[in-house]
Amino acid sequence: MITRTTNLIVRYAETDAQGVVHHSNYLVWFEEARSDFLRQQGLAYSDLEASGFFVVVTEVAVTFRAPAFYEDRIAIETTLVKARGRLLEFGYRIHNAMGNLLVEGRTRHLVLGGDRRPVSLPEPVLEKLLTTRH
Amino acid sequence: MITRTTNLIVRYAETDAQGVVHHSNYLVWFEEARSDFLRQQGLAYSDLEASGFFVVVTEVAVTFRAPAFYEDRIAIETTLVKARGRLLEFGYRIHNAMGNLLVEGRTRHLVLGGDRRPVSLPEPVLEKLLTTRH
Amino acid sequence: MITRTTNLIVRYAETDAQGVVHHSNYLVWFEEARSDFLRQQGLAYSDLEASGFFVVVTEVAVTFRAPAFYEDRIAIETTLVKARGRLLEFGYRIHNAMGNLLVEGRTRHLVLGGDRRPVSLPEPVLEKLLTTRH
Amino acid sequence: MITRTTNLIVRYAETDAQGVVHHSNYLVWFEEARSDFLRQQGLAYSDLEASGFFVVVTEVAVTFRAPAFYEDRIAIETTLVKARGRLLEFGYRIHNAMGNLLVEGRTRHLVLGGDRRPVSLPEPVLEKLLTTRH
Repeated sequence: MITRTTNLIVRYAETDAQGVVHHSNYLVWFEEARSDFLRQQGLAYSDLEASGFFVVVTEVAVTFRAPAFYEDRIAIETTLVKARGRLLEFGYRIHNAMGNLLVEGRTRHLVLGGDRRPVSLPEPVLEKLLTTRH
Repeated sequence: MITRTTNLIVRYAETDAQGVVHHSNYLVWFEEARSDFLRQQGLAYSDLEASGFFVVVTEVAVTFRAPAFYEDRIAIETTLVKARGRLLEFGYRIHNAMGNLLVEGRTRHLVLGGDRRPVSLPEPVLEKLLTTRH
Repeated sequence: MITRTTNLIVRYAETDAQGVVHHSNYLVWFEEARSDFLRQQGLAYSDLEASGFFVVVTEVAVTFRAPAFYEDRIAIETTLVKARGRLLEFGYRIHNAMGNLLVEGRTRHLVLGGDRRPVSLPEPVLEKLLTTRH
Repeated sequence: MITRTTNLIVRYAETDAQGVVHHSNYLVWFEEARSDFLRQQGLAYSDLEASGFFVVVTEVAVTFRAPAFYEDRIAIETTLVKARGRLLEFGYRIHNAMGNLLVEGRTRHLVLGGDRRPVSLPEPVLEKLLTTRH
């Protein structure tokens, strides 16, 4: 299983009146981490959509262990757990700069074609997705 | 000039770590107030897009006078300031339930056709937009 | 188990480039539905925070069955599944105006006191939360 | 006048059903660019808030010239236009990787103290803000 790391700094707009990152933003970060995972694998999701493939989210599960704060430096470890035909599954672990585990999550996805019906990703795309690079 | 009022309740996700509504949300509320203005005039922006017209934002100006808080009951007065050919302009005044003026703003818009080039709104649409109803 | 319904209209800002509601917004809607559930039970979460109680999200799980679109009229059924001491659990079912089930979800919460340590909700609050009203 | 550049990649969640970045996100980007401007000047806005200073937005004006798309590489040039006592003013110019000017804007700010009344920034902070570094 391949794991890639994405780094970001918490934006002020991502906080809420409890003084911490609003929990909905972790789904946005998971998505950005997936995009970055693909880019690190030599793929761009924008190219996928341009060639008529749409990856939609079918399930998410998140456990919130500790809060993140404005300007925290965040590391998201993204693991491709499954890539079989029309199904993708990713796992995520989010730490802050002190190494505290803040959030763990998992997302499941379905690949759709231009007609918005389920379809398998093309072989060359799957291959890129699953190749360990250095 | 026609003015319509839209009411909403502040969502927790709209607040930030200063304990108040994050300023970017006022643009979201202006947009929602425009949508509601159109619905009150008997139009739906979703129908406009479905028939190949896209209204894009070209300019915004906002003055922030006082903060809004979670669960505040907000009233947005939206005025259609200009609707001439391919140009639209709206003005907004936002009050809380105590009648305090929180925010004033203005947005300018351009109408695009299916080819994403500027185009005038059809006469029947402009007429509906400009008719005072009871 | 008490169930309350919250209605809303999809905002343009809640859509994404796939033309549908971005999945992170369902967490915002769940939260707004919880706030509305409390208001319908005669409580206001803003009052709870003002008296030193903070309810934080510890877990979410969401299944996405069908997309929502701009200007769709959405109904969120919120059920209080558990309210025991310092733990709360809510379930959600989201339908559009055609009656299609779009999304199902569940959120778990922990109640914190002013010192941000787990604490039970006061009896009168729990009572209000659990009383069927007409 | 000091100008600093901040780079970012467009997130999918920042797009809307027109297939472009939703205009409200430019206020979020301006804010992130201000945070980054301060960090590049050796300041952190989180430290400012921790020491009892709050910078609030009093005015924004934005002109939208061309759209940004998912995965576009964005450069935000932020200029500190004014820093006098309790008032701050920033200007912004946003380009994509092809060098196209997408958006121009300006924000005005007021500095508040712990009691939420206007107050001047301390001299050492103003000095850091106004010092050209290499």
